[in-house]
Amino acid sequence: MIENIIIREAVPADYTRVLALIKELAAFEKEPDAVDVTVEELLEGASGATPLFTCFVGEVAGRIEGIALCYFRFSTWKGKTVHLEDLIVTESMRGMGLGKKLYDRVLLYAHAHNVRRVEWVVLDWNTNAIGFYERTGAIMDKSWYLAQLNKTALQRYISNL
Amino acid sequence: MIENIIIREAVPADYTRVLALIKELAAFEKEPDAVDVTVEELLEGASGATPLFTCFVGEVAGRIEGIALCYFRFSTWKGKTVHLEDLIVTESMRGMGLGKKLYDRVLLYAHAHNVRRVEWVVLDWNTNAIGFYERTGAIMDKSWYLAQLNKTALQRYISNL
Repeated sequence: MIENIIIREAVPADYTRVLALIKELAAFEKEPDAVDVTVEELLEGASGATPLFTCFVGEVAGRIEGIALCYFRFSTWKGKTVHLEDLIVTESMRGMGLGKKLYDRVLLYAHAHNVRRVEWVVLDWNTNAIGFYERTGAIMDKSWYLAQLNKTALQRYISNL
Repeated sequence: MIENIIIREAVPADYTRVLALIKELAAFEKEPDAVDVTVEELLEGASGATPLFTCFVGEVAGRIEGIALCYFRFSTWKGKTVHLEDLIVTESMRGMGLGKKLYDRVLLYAHAHNVRRVEWVVLDWNTNAIGFYERTGAIMDKSWYLAQLNKTALQRYISNL
């Protein structure tokens, strides 16, 4: 375990580093070219009258080495829920407790908002992550497919209406 | 195809019927007791300074026979996205074009907001729905598990921190 971890909400100056960690995770998940989001979009999403997410950062010795980004969703079964979009720890800092501290912070946030569910997705081959989540009481539901329509398909569909 | 379908945004008086349709879908999905949400929570989620969702309803002969409930999410890869939480058509009205009209309305909404992705989940055995979605250009990604921590598990985890 590393000492002197600070978990706090991200401030605007953090988002360049946040984006670097997002890209690191995308490479780990074998989708290195999937990240279209920009620092400007992160800044815009984090601010304004209706922010699209809350981002927690984990600092070690003054440097951001991990993030947890989450937001509210609305389940027609469970009402307001918290969705954990990304939990990232930079490769050199894995296995030292930073990920758990970020995860705990998100669950405390969910608990404070009195939601009935916290939800996220995990790649089926990421057995380390699945094992960690299951030990915390999470259930992996394998009966749903993610359906996605990307921007090109969306434009094609709309143009044929 | 049925004539005289009206698709519009839900108003407060609609949510009793909306909840009935949510419960009908839960029964179809073999989870009849999973719906904890109340009319009050639907009304609260739909209103206020930061609504949690947008709900479209489909009327046939003045009666709501289907709904599509969606909201924005934030993908760390794609930025702002639209999530289609539920697309429901009451059983007696299926196969007559109401579902497509509701789906089209959500995609027009997503297009108007210039998002890079529309996303939802579908049960792996619901081959009719999967076929419909694939014909519109959607991709079923089968490599992710849904991870969920329910309220009981959340409270147990928090109490042990």
